[in-house]
Amino acid sequence: MHLTIVPDVVRNQSIVDLPASATALQAAQFMVDRDTAAVVILDSSRRLIGIVTERDLTRRVLAQGRDPATTPLEAIMTRNPDTLSPQDSALDALELMNVRRYRHLPVVDDGKVVGMVSIRDLYATVKAKLEEDIREAEAFAFGDR
Amino acid sequence: MHLTIVPDVVRNQSIVDLPASATALQAAQFMVDRDTAAVVILDSSRRLIGIVTERDLTRRVLAQGRDPATTPLEAIMTRNPDTLSPQDSALDALELMNVRRYRHLPVVDDGKVVGMVSIRDLYATVKAKLEEDIREAEAFAFGDR
Repeated sequence: MHLTIVPDVVRNQSIVDLPASATALQAAQFMVDRDTAAVVILDSSRRLIGIVTERDLTRRVLAQGRDPATTPLEAIMTRNPDTLSPQDSALDALELMNVRRYRHLPVVDDGKVVGMVSIRDLYATVKAKLEEDIREAEAFAFGDR
Repeated sequence: MHLTIVPDVVRNQSIVDLPASATALQAAQFMVDRDTAAVVILDSSRRLIGIVTERDLTRRVLAQGRDPATTPLEAIMTRNPDTLSPQDSALDALELMNVRRYRHLPVVDDGKVVGMVSIRDLYATVKAKLEEDIREAEAFAFGDR
């Protein structure tokens, strides 16, 4: 089985990004608006500098009693996050996310963010492929082709 | 393939619970301490009345500008959440969680919460079983047994 991040998992995705100067409150509201659990933080050249997730908002803002309206994302973002490239194997990415307990990883191509992979998307892709492999193996075993 | 929630996905799990009177701040701190993304809300008889996740804290506290130190969980919890029973099929549970976009579901047995299933746990279990099925089908096809 060989599946790659692009095009098997991610295709033509819109990027959900904010600048590091945006606040935790703005990030939370943006996540609601865009129905997402993670935003990438880009600099003025639209280079990736960080990532902020619902988990970061819970652990680094709420749990620490910070004021979301005045806490900038640069204070709570995960800097220089691990990333995937479009050519990466979906199975390798899944392993990385399981081992490091990531739920989201940005996909970067030639310095530009081109998408975000969630572990849910990855699992769904890998599971569909495994099921197809099983059907093929069974068809072969039972002589359906 | 038949996998059930207990024992294939969940076994001897400790329950992470809070009362409805606890605050959003307490829930966020508790999630950090227990390294979890969801807590069940139990009444004084330890019956399940709700669930609170990192997503709820992000969307219903942070994004709405509520004060986490004074917002009780009863104001933000999802009441009467869907639940799984120990006998439920892991595949059915996965389908339910994908369709409704749940990441966590409490497991209830005879009125008592006995565990919490995350979509990550479910996928890992189902994937392991699918891989085993593929190996068996291939072994059969190529006469290894």
